[in-house]
Amino acid sequence: MDITNGLGVPQETLDAEIKSFFESAPPLKNSDDIGNGEARRVVCVTSGGTTVPLEQRCVRFIDNFSSGHRGATSTEYFIKAGYAVIFLYRRGSYQPYCRSLPEDPLLECFEYTDESSIRVRESHSEAVKKAISEHHAAVAEGFLLKLPFTTIFEYLQMLQMVATSLRSLGAHAMFYLAAAVSDFYVPWKSMAEHKIQSASGPLDMRLVQVPKMLSVLRKDWAPMAFCISFKADMALKKYKMHMVVANELLTRKDEVVVVTSNEKILVHRDKTEVGDVVENPLIRVIVERHSAYVEKSDI
Amino acid sequence: MDITNGLGVPQETLDAEIKSFFESAPPLKNSDDIGNGEARRVVCVTSGGTTVPLEQRCVRFIDNFSSGHRGATSTEYFIKAGYAVIFLYRRGSYQPYCRSLPEDPLLECFEYTDESSIRVRESHSEAVKKAISEHHAAVAEGFLLKLPFTTIFEYLQMLQMVATSLRSLGAHAMFYLAAAVSDFYVPWKSMAEHKIQSASGPLDMRLVQVPKMLSVLRKDWAPMAFCISFKADMALKKYKMHMVVANELLTRKDEVVVVTSNEKILVHRDKTEVGDVVENPLIRVIVERHSAYVEKSDI
Repeated sequence: MDITNGLGVPQETLDAEIKSFFESAPPLKNSDDIGNGEARRVVCVTSGGTTVPLEQRCVRFIDNFSSGHRGATSTEYFIKAGYAVIFLYRRGSYQPYCRSLPEDPLLECFEYTDESSIRVRESHSEAVKKAISEHHAAVAEGFLLKLPFTTIFEYLQMLQMVATSLRSLGAHAMFYLAAAVSDFYVPWKSMAEHKIQSASGPLDMRLVQVPKMLSVLRKDWAPMAFCISFKADMALKKYKMHMVVANELLTRKDEVVVVTSNEKILVHRDKTEVGDVVENPLIRVIVERHSAYVEKSDI
Repeated sequence: MDITNGLGVPQETLDAEIKSFFESAPPLKNSDDIGNGEARRVVCVTSGGTTVPLEQRCVRFIDNFSSGHRGATSTEYFIKAGYAVIFLYRRGSYQPYCRSLPEDPLLECFEYTDESSIRVRESHSEAVKKAISEHHAAVAEGFLLKLPFTTIFEYLQMLQMVATSLRSLGAHAMFYLAAAVSDFYVPWKSMAEHKIQSASGPLDMRLVQVPKMLSVLRKDWAPMAFCISFKADMALKKYKMHMVVANELLTRKDEVVVVTSNEKILVHRDKTEVGDVVENPLIRVIVERHSAYVEKSDI
């Protein structure tokens, strides 16, 4: 009898695809940065989009746009709720505590005074103070570990390392998968070593699907961890997520729908309170459900 | 007799392709920011890579990697040489006077003191001072106009506007085309309106060539302007550039070769001087040649 996994492909095919993905990935550069988790509640928040290099000496690549606003903001609320956060983020995407800053904070927030010193512009002083003090406090107190990625290879390699490191935490670990992950990639070895030449005529490209890693995360990497994904397409059943967060592009900053195996909860920000964000009630709902999950698994 | 242009395609085909490119581009958002040039030496420095959206509501796109280091550094030396610089740059790429800063300057260069104020970390104090004071001075004194782009559409639309605005400056205008521009694109109207669905199986994509705009820049937009490109492939003859700067990936920060119609000049940084960059002698060579060109055209 074939072992099946609900994905409609034989398990050995999936295993082979996953093995082949990691074998075809370039070596991970900063694997030493990723330590072991301590015995407390830890959430790995993924944030921003992944790239797919089209050449080995990467000049051209396909990118998935995601500002990283959801992941960065959610991180603030997880830390407030007492979680340690492993923030696996795309280089250059939004950082926790920095969402009120302009595009180029250094050049826009500061000015040079007549007395040859640097001063924060009045208009940005609250935002700068918050960014620097709260961000540094979170890092210094061990509540925030930041791990940057760029490519789909780095992202999945690091996710695998984080997940296997957090496995020992059992139900105390959580994955909050807000990153926009590429669906297609070009295997490293089949990639052009140099820049694709621009000859005349159109360019035809063939990309292959990235194997569905969420199911392996759930099955092998960290089977007890509480998992939340932002994929609306049947992720709950297909990848055995504990929760799925769905949103519409236009209203995503105001409301989201949280789907569990037996509930569908509409979560919206408190519009009567200035500056409230939907991540505030969203993380509250998630933490409640995670607490119930931890208690149940402790029995 | 057909009018030819040295590109091996009839002029009317090229004109039609260029017309069709601009017609198929989305409307430019910040066209009001681009003013008219004054009667002094002005160089338009392009910097960073352009993106090619794969969907109209851009989630996925192809990107050309370029840090923008060459363009940002060259801008500093053009300003030092008395030029006004229109810096047409990719959002998020290197900014002039900021090349010694770390990846996330706000979070890495500043710290919060016990007295609840913000302080520049000693290790970064020179870099921060230089970035803020020299950058702001250049903008305030009218030597630096910064125009950001993201997509190939925005880049070429803005380049066209800048070029036609600078046309009146004749030989006093210069184009220093250091941006890494996409060779292929998906026409806006033929693009999927929503995110490409990830069905099963591989993804096949067809991209069409971006028409060769350099020749139009030379012929129509600003025929008298002095043009320097970083394309090694016959740009001198094919696109009638005045100079081409060639470099090797590994040695690009130490030396470059400047090719003109009758010279081939090896330019390298002064290794005996700490902190010297190849853009220092490179811009010196370019300014000399531009001066000679201006003089000749004034006669």
